[in-house]
Amino acid sequence: MDCSVAQCLEVVGEWWSMLIVRDAFLGVTHFEEFQRRLGISRNILQQRLLTLVDAGVFVRVPYSEHPPRYDYRLTEKGRDLWPVLTAMRQWGDRYAAPAGPPIEIAHKDCGAISEAVLACGSCSEPIGARDVRAVAGPGRAELPHVRRSTLPES
Amino acid sequence: MDCSVAQCLEVVGEWWSMLIVRDAFLGVTHFEEFQRRLGISRNILQQRLLTLVDAGVFVRVPYSEHPPRYDYRLTEKGRDLWPVLTAMRQWGDRYAAPAGPPIEIAHKDCGAISEAVLACGSCSEPIGARDVRAVAGPGRAELPHVRRSTLPES
Repeated sequence: MDCSVAQCLEVVGEWWSMLIVRDAFLGVTHFEEFQRRLGISRNILQQRLLTLVDAGVFVRVPYSEHPPRYDYRLTEKGRDLWPVLTAMRQWGDRYAAPAGPPIEIAHKDCGAISEAVLACGSCSEPIGARDVRAVAGPGRAELPHVRRSTLPES
Repeated sequence: MDCSVAQCLEVVGEWWSMLIVRDAFLGVTHFEEFQRRLGISRNILQQRLLTLVDAGVFVRVPYSEHPPRYDYRLTEKGRDLWPVLTAMRQWGDRYAAPAGPPIEIAHKDCGAISEAVLACGSCSEPIGARDVRAVAGPGRAELPHVRRSTLPES
């Protein structure tokens, strides 16, 4: 499918995969610790980790030969999922955390407990859906046709 | 599960759901047009749309009585998925769009074809995974234990 969202969903759309990535950002690298924290079967965890290694999100690094044991470490491609994870977490905080956010993020530089906001990479101003318009990129001949009469009014 | 990422995955982790949300941001509101663009069965689309309405992501607004026809419009909760969608799209652009991004975003204010970047909501500086540390929020008594020896070195 000619859509970058769909390509990302191939990785993050699988329930356990994104929770494995979440735990990796919290410092988990060992199979046993992923398994303990997620409470899933060893079979499913093994499948998901190998899929994530195949996708280039994790790299498997041996740390013991007898018995064979591996660290699962995020690659650059995996660490680049941080904005996806952060956006998901903050949406869940807003709409599905009645007792308040389970985890918050402290910005080391300024010290604030901070919500991450999206900003324009060019002018640095905050941006939201209504501040931008979609245009056809080099990967597609033209923007998929949408009848303008159906554009949301709000 | 006491995790906002998991709560968000309940909505966006289902493959078609996030592609329906994507199309809604491009202006689609009619069942027929979602169906034509996504190329999925009417049954599955109907199920997904009703699930998204139940989740409060879409609201269903009648626009014809005979025959009964509805617009599916994003609610505020749905529009707040824009950062998730944007982060997914940009990750897919980076890692799975060899011909270049299929869709790009023009920032209306500054006119630039812009990549959205995450910035600290407090000091407005750009932030990434290494600029922050996770702390326990009000929704959880303490940060889930991670053995410090397993923190990634990179």
